[in-house]
Amino acid sequence: MGTIATSEQQARSDHYPSRGTSKAQLLKRLDPIVYSSVTTPSPISQTLVEGYKENGFIILEDVFGKKEIESLQRELGLLRNNEKIRTRAEVITEPGDDSIRSIFRIHQLSSIFRKLGTNRRLVQLAQYLLGDRVYIYQSRLNYKPGFYGKEFYWHSDFETWHVEDGMPIMRALSMSITLTDNYETNGPLMLIPGSHKHYVVCEGETPKNHFKDSLKKQEYGVPSIDYLSRLVDKSGIVTATGKPGSVIIFDCNTMHGSNSNITPYPRSNVFFVYNALSNHVVEPFCNQPPRPEYICAREAIEPVQV
Amino acid sequence: MGTIATSEQQARSDHYPSRGTSKAQLLKRLDPIVYSSVTTPSPISQTLVEGYKENGFIILEDVFGKKEIESLQRELGLLRNNEKIRTRAEVITEPGDDSIRSIFRIHQLSSIFRKLGTNRRLVQLAQYLLGDRVYIYQSRLNYKPGFYGKEFYWHSDFETWHVEDGMPIMRALSMSITLTDNYETNGPLMLIPGSHKHYVVCEGETPKNHFKDSLKKQEYGVPSIDYLSRLVDKSGIVTATGKPGSVIIFDCNTMHGSNSNITPYPRSNVFFVYNALSNHVVEPFCNQPPRPEYICAREAIEPVQV
Repeated sequence: MGTIATSEQQARSDHYPSRGTSKAQLLKRLDPIVYSSVTTPSPISQTLVEGYKENGFIILEDVFGKKEIESLQRELGLLRNNEKIRTRAEVITEPGDDSIRSIFRIHQLSSIFRKLGTNRRLVQLAQYLLGDRVYIYQSRLNYKPGFYGKEFYWHSDFETWHVEDGMPIMRALSMSITLTDNYETNGPLMLIPGSHKHYVVCEGETPKNHFKDSLKKQEYGVPSIDYLSRLVDKSGIVTATGKPGSVIIFDCNTMHGSNSNITPYPRSNVFFVYNALSNHVVEPFCNQPPRPEYICAREAIEPVQV
Repeated sequence: MGTIATSEQQARSDHYPSRGTSKAQLLKRLDPIVYSSVTTPSPISQTLVEGYKENGFIILEDVFGKKEIESLQRELGLLRNNEKIRTRAEVITEPGDDSIRSIFRIHQLSSIFRKLGTNRRLVQLAQYLLGDRVYIYQSRLNYKPGFYGKEFYWHSDFETWHVEDGMPIMRALSMSITLTDNYETNGPLMLIPGSHKHYVVCEGETPKNHFKDSLKKQEYGVPSIDYLSRLVDKSGIVTATGKPGSVIIFDCNTMHGSNSNITPYPRSNVFFVYNALSNHVVEPFCNQPPRPEYICAREAIEPVQV
């Protein structure tokens, strides 16, 4: 990992090809899911670890208390109405209007969210599951506002991170902290259990500056409905509903998405993506320049200290 | 009702004004909800009748058996793939692509669906609740396909039927028969209990040929988020989930909508709108010509015989 491979070298060693000349297919995952050995003391029960291995996600309830959540909700409101923030590149609006869909690099824009992303309990769990020191690869607030919150179509984060950012292997995970009630009705996160054990090769080119549109609405590199159906046929769909203060932890390759939200209840979550330090990005596995630093940290990567 | 009122006369007698020069507000419903007297024998229990009065809807499970539903599902598939049907005006496609969203006038396009819409149990119940002979005002299949099914934003049917079709008072109801599983995840019908007791006056003009767009995506005559929030604050949201063969019966003024559907499971329902014969339409309460006959029956209206 000391030197950055050339595109040619990568093409030869790309075990997770997707888009470009690739044809839609289902490949086996080649990497571990939990990287620490069973003898390493775990910050969560072995049952939860097994659940994470089997399903590709776990949900921990009541991780954060009422006061902590109120402080985060207040910060979320302040960021949303901060005119200086609204004009930044990190802010993604909903397709078709200017309400805020997501804010990226939230751990650098807000000291309160930085504190959350470097929370000892979260980071130690990420270190345990990934068996390495970790850094924050990406962070973002997803507002999913009431009335007009739009869907996020099915995707494996790893497929995009691999192709567009150059993440070498599946050794990263997301933690989504719920900041509002996540009901069945307000477009909760939906996950396909077991989907992380397969890699869904997608068809289609990666257009130039794809991220500018894909963060509003994904149209390239989407899994085919045939393979999605196969994955769902195996073990269905789980919705991650719960009170504010829950943490949804899911593997970088777990297929997930969410429906729209016409209810008055916003469905706001904050995501931190932890990547193993040894798994830092190389050149993208497509013929496009890397996405901006606020979407994928590539420079001056520092492990989170706990 | 013998003669059709002029626009001016209607303006004077319009108890449910909306759009045009109207300002957003909440008016009281002026009409009964159940029109038959308590002494009239009811085809459903008094508890269900009271539930309908209070909430504006009831859900009856297992009304149709497996064989009946299979036959309807088969017909649904045939209609969907019938090239002669696809090009008809009655067929509404999803916004942004050509997959079928709805087919109108289904009781005239298909003898199997005609039989369903004139089913004795459904019609007798409609007659009881509306206290009159009834006719089929509108019928439609809503496919809500898997993966790409789009949302239906909140609306009161009556607001549109009154303004755009000229339905005089709230004396109509819908019956939605579920043809597939309606899960929490595949964009089930959501209803706001008690919302039928209020009339939400909407702002905005009715554009010319509004129906051509509004059946894909409603943009005018939508209730304000303030009033929607007030209605939801009172009694929340109920999702109409259930197995195929259920019937959801809801008052013409019950606020309802549904989220998108990215799951592989289509959420297909067939709707029949029954209107009291005495409540047949007059001139629209807006400055536009009436919508086409396939959306709103206005000519040669005949009561359903049972």
